[in-house]
Amino acid sequence: MRICLIGFGAVGQGVVKIISLKKKHVKNKFNIELKVVGVSDSSGSAINQEGLDEELLLDIKSKTNKIYNYPKYGDNSLQGIELLDNVDYDCLVEATPTNISTGEPAKSLTLKAFNDKKDVVTSNKGHLALFFNEMISKAKENNVEFKFEASVGGAMPIINFSKKTLPSSEIESIIGILNGTTNFILSRMTSEGSSYKDTLEESKVLGIAETDPSQDVEGIDAACKTVILANSVLGIDCVYDDIEIEGITNITSQAIELAKKEGYFIKLIAEISKDKLKVAPRLVKKNSPYAIEGTLNMATLKTDLAGDVTVVGKGAGSIETASAILTDIINIKKTIRE
Amino acid sequence: MRICLIGFGAVGQGVVKIISLKKKHVKNKFNIELKVVGVSDSSGSAINQEGLDEELLLDIKSKTNKIYNYPKYGDNSLQGIELLDNVDYDCLVEATPTNISTGEPAKSLTLKAFNDKKDVVTSNKGHLALFFNEMISKAKENNVEFKFEASVGGAMPIINFSKKTLPSSEIESIIGILNGTTNFILSRMTSEGSSYKDTLEESKVLGIAETDPSQDVEGIDAACKTVILANSVLGIDCVYDDIEIEGITNITSQAIELAKKEGYFIKLIAEISKDKLKVAPRLVKKNSPYAIEGTLNMATLKTDLAGDVTVVGKGAGSIETASAILTDIINIKKTIRE
Repeated sequence: MRICLIGFGAVGQGVVKIISLKKKHVKNKFNIELKVVGVSDSSGSAINQEGLDEELLLDIKSKTNKIYNYPKYGDNSLQGIELLDNVDYDCLVEATPTNISTGEPAKSLTLKAFNDKKDVVTSNKGHLALFFNEMISKAKENNVEFKFEASVGGAMPIINFSKKTLPSSEIESIIGILNGTTNFILSRMTSEGSSYKDTLEESKVLGIAETDPSQDVEGIDAACKTVILANSVLGIDCVYDDIEIEGITNITSQAIELAKKEGYFIKLIAEISKDKLKVAPRLVKKNSPYAIEGTLNMATLKTDLAGDVTVVGKGAGSIETASAILTDIINIKKTIRE
Repeated sequence: MRICLIGFGAVGQGVVKIISLKKKHVKNKFNIELKVVGVSDSSGSAINQEGLDEELLLDIKSKTNKIYNYPKYGDNSLQGIELLDNVDYDCLVEATPTNISTGEPAKSLTLKAFNDKKDVVTSNKGHLALFFNEMISKAKENNVEFKFEASVGGAMPIINFSKKTLPSSEIESIIGILNGTTNFILSRMTSEGSSYKDTLEESKVLGIAETDPSQDVEGIDAACKTVILANSVLGIDCVYDDIEIEGITNITSQAIELAKKEGYFIKLIAEISKDKLKVAPRLVKKNSPYAIEGTLNMATLKTDLAGDVTVVGKGAGSIETASAILTDIINIKKTIRE
């Protein structure tokens, strides 16, 4: 399976790293031969139909930050979508940053790959949150696979879990904590009694919150994931604008303290059902599956027969997110075989 | 798919109930036609190759407690293993009570079905804990399917979860709370400050602990599940006698209070890895995925790439456990098709 990777930031580098670590295992266990034939960052690209060396890719990126410096096969004239016409590949791994205004460049990259009859695996949320149905329809039209486990919850395998482990039950709704940064901030405010502002600053210093944390703290990131789960797991036709969103910026340490006294925590909760598409702070009971700390993500599936079933996992991290991408790549080959 | 059900207690009745509820859904979604052709309890049986009526089965059992009273098709001369030679079926659903000394009658029933080239789905732990490898080998020898999701954690889909959702990662160990009764007792002792003895009595009154609670409180039930997960998920060849077991009967309210002061709970934890096969009380951190209350079960898979991934679900309940059996039945047909 020849991989073309566009986007060579933390997640993209994670993908190359685990392909390096796991390619023998994947060959032995699933009979899939993984080969990275093209990589693009915002500066340019590296292309070799025989396969690029994973360790060298990581080394060049870490030392020069420009992948076109890859010896012999680097190219500073080709980048992003142009790469797709200049490399012969089977699966596009699309790991560019999420853009919630336009869904680009993920949308154009993905549609181009579909049009060329290539499978696509993505960690991007933008095009899914804005154009979920269009993306899925185009994949079907072109008879290609389109997978996006990494776009929700990093290494928490919520989409595969929902689709593969509970065939006897119907999933009626999903309630989850889908953003690790806000969960970290609220957990710290609870354990330390500190203010929102101070805790946000601390989170930035620790590298957990970004310099511009608005996507996380305003609930935008969790809302994108809500759209993806609503469509893909519950079959609810919705887009980003359909989600009612309230972030955590108005949560005070007093509110957290009051809740705590009564045996509750305040968490940023996504509620996903036919009647409700909402991201907002809510009280959750102590010692319930919702009472997870730190940057963890969780989601509870409310089912008709199996009752509540919950999955918890690391919502971020380059290796963890990349592991979800590799799972999707393996599942594409398995699906095709079936 | 013609089902022969042996064992018509809470779980067996749950199976018949959800077949009644879900057979149309299963037909539409998976193209599997479910038909119960034989049912046995300890008194006798009911057999009809055209299919028994699910509601009537439940009604007769609830009113007379003897399934041989089923009109026209009841038979008080056939019971248990004898039934298997007198009904034409595709899949044995084996839901007799667990016997941890001999593994019977589950073992003989299952081997007989294998020998007759029939698939088997079970909720029983005894034969698996005592003879795991023998059972699996015989299933393979006879080229039949053998599934047992319901035997561990009821509606917590830990086996399917481990096998289906994380193909890119290797599961290195499992740490879990695999017994709901003891988790309920320890949770109540923690929230109420009550003694072990009083809380056990309360649990009996509530119907959560059995009249003879030794299998649960001495850790035997959790140890059986440990054997099943060790073999089926981690490939560790072990039997019941290999598990180090300590129950919760010596846990005092003082010990729980001390732990609580330091931010910990005491839970009955199963640890499953190549180096350790152990069920014993352990301290777990507040607000971690281990800090679940009530009769819930949970298991954390420690993986090389995805980090810790946790699944939580209802560990008991007749409908919940039956839902795991129906999942196995559906997966058998799916496996055969692939």
